[in-house]
Amino acid sequence: MPQSDETSAFDAATAVHRTQDGSLRTELDPGWEVGGGILNGGYLLSVIGRAAVLESPHAHPVALSASYLRAPSAGPATLTVVPGPSGRTLAHSLVTLSDAGGPALVVQATTSTLTAAPSEYGHPMPDVQPVEEGFSIAEHRDLAPPGVQVPGLSLRVDTRLDVATAGWALGQPSGEPVLRAWMRFTDGREPDPLALLTFADALPPTSFAMGNFGWAPTVQLQVLVRALPAPGWCLVEARSSELSGGWVDEDYRIWDSTGRLVAQSRQLARAPR
Amino acid sequence: MPQSDETSAFDAATAVHRTQDGSLRTELDPGWEVGGGILNGGYLLSVIGRAAVLESPHAHPVALSASYLRAPSAGPATLTVVPGPSGRTLAHSLVTLSDAGGPALVVQATTSTLTAAPSEYGHPMPDVQPVEEGFSIAEHRDLAPPGVQVPGLSLRVDTRLDVATAGWALGQPSGEPVLRAWMRFTDGREPDPLALLTFADALPPTSFAMGNFGWAPTVQLQVLVRALPAPGWCLVEARSSELSGGWVDEDYRIWDSTGRLVAQSRQLARAPR
Repeated sequence: MPQSDETSAFDAATAVHRTQDGSLRTELDPGWEVGGGILNGGYLLSVIGRAAVLESPHAHPVALSASYLRAPSAGPATLTVVPGPSGRTLAHSLVTLSDAGGPALVVQATTSTLTAAPSEYGHPMPDVQPVEEGFSIAEHRDLAPPGVQVPGLSLRVDTRLDVATAGWALGQPSGEPVLRAWMRFTDGREPDPLALLTFADALPPTSFAMGNFGWAPTVQLQVLVRALPAPGWCLVEARSSELSGGWVDEDYRIWDSTGRLVAQSRQLARAPR
Repeated sequence: MPQSDETSAFDAATAVHRTQDGSLRTELDPGWEVGGGILNGGYLLSVIGRAAVLESPHAHPVALSASYLRAPSAGPATLTVVPGPSGRTLAHSLVTLSDAGGPALVVQATTSTLTAAPSEYGHPMPDVQPVEEGFSIAEHRDLAPPGVQVPGLSLRVDTRLDVATAGWALGQPSGEPVLRAWMRFTDGREPDPLALLTFADALPPTSFAMGNFGWAPTVQLQVLVRALPAPGWCLVEARSSELSGGWVDEDYRIWDSTGRLVAQSRQLARAPR
């Protein structure tokens, strides 16, 4: 747990500040990469979410739909928020993240204020073994498949794979494009809606479970935040429904430590060769 | 089947034309409504998809992420397409649909050219009874629950509910937020990627299966088109994962007549009271 006088790694890496001329700036942290210096798409979405709520009367991102135009570089970046219609329940905006090379992400953001409303219907959390029995990606970096390095992301987001979906790391891919893991920030920073935006793209590509260890660049990603997560570990599940023609989808569900469904995401990515 | 010298109702209702000054215009058809004159969100997305491919080097919409700012009126509307990065595999653009009241939908469009590539992995089509045994929404309009009128959409998209998910129409809601139906255009126009955009939002709200017959306005909707559909009926399934705090998600999978998964969608909507 970070001490109270210490900023968590996540909060530092996603900080957005307003300059004297009123524009929004951030410093993209090279540590949140997924290999080859490519920054994680969920991490970038957390930065976007922070900018969206800064310019909204509402406190939380509830729906972000992102187009990944190109991979931005680590370092300084600018955020532009164009407000759309805004009301008592929700507000719309269009957020663009740009680095020196130009626009990298364009995101439609819907913000609202999530409450402690109980769930009226919730997709149940799957049965998995306890966190302590999960397969830690960071601790087993010597077991990574050939050509795969443990990314900076997995050092910052403690990722404990459900062993039923970790066969690929031991040379025995399941052949089913499903991955599940317990997740929390390594420094103990508790989850919140902004954290869920990172978790919603923080598993390895589902193609790993098929024995294919290439990178799967995201083309579009939509994340829905459905509730305020309780403290503790989240269970994150990714599943693909269709793989063909060089395209793959990834569909995430995230439950908090009480078993409540707190976020969903879906992305279309280019399939690794 | 429409005769060869006849334009299908869908093609006529989604036609986009370029005016002399180069702008794109459409005429939104009041027939594609879902009650109270509100136009179906999937129908609007088909119009958007047509505009996106008109301004793209690629032939098909593969990912559209839409924010529904407000419900547009039937009648004349304008489409603005701002091109983004474009390459051999895909092109990005931002499409806005506006009527006399201003912008109504903002959509991030990714276009590509779908091929006849075989599926390497596909989520299997669920077992349902044959089309002829499905429960036709249009034919049973006298059975509609109190306050529910058969919408214009269901007259234009022939919708045959899986009887296992049609209990709500007979006064026996299943209590599980899942609906499934065979769909095709009533005039026999065959499915294509543009049609799938309409099908991806064409079922009644999943809350109907919970016995709640209010309108569930879409806030954001993402549709992925995964393959060129074969001729014939499509099977469309909608499922909600979480209902709370006035919000509901709807998650669609669509299979073509050969059983291949051809489209997916996910939306966040305001839950009916």
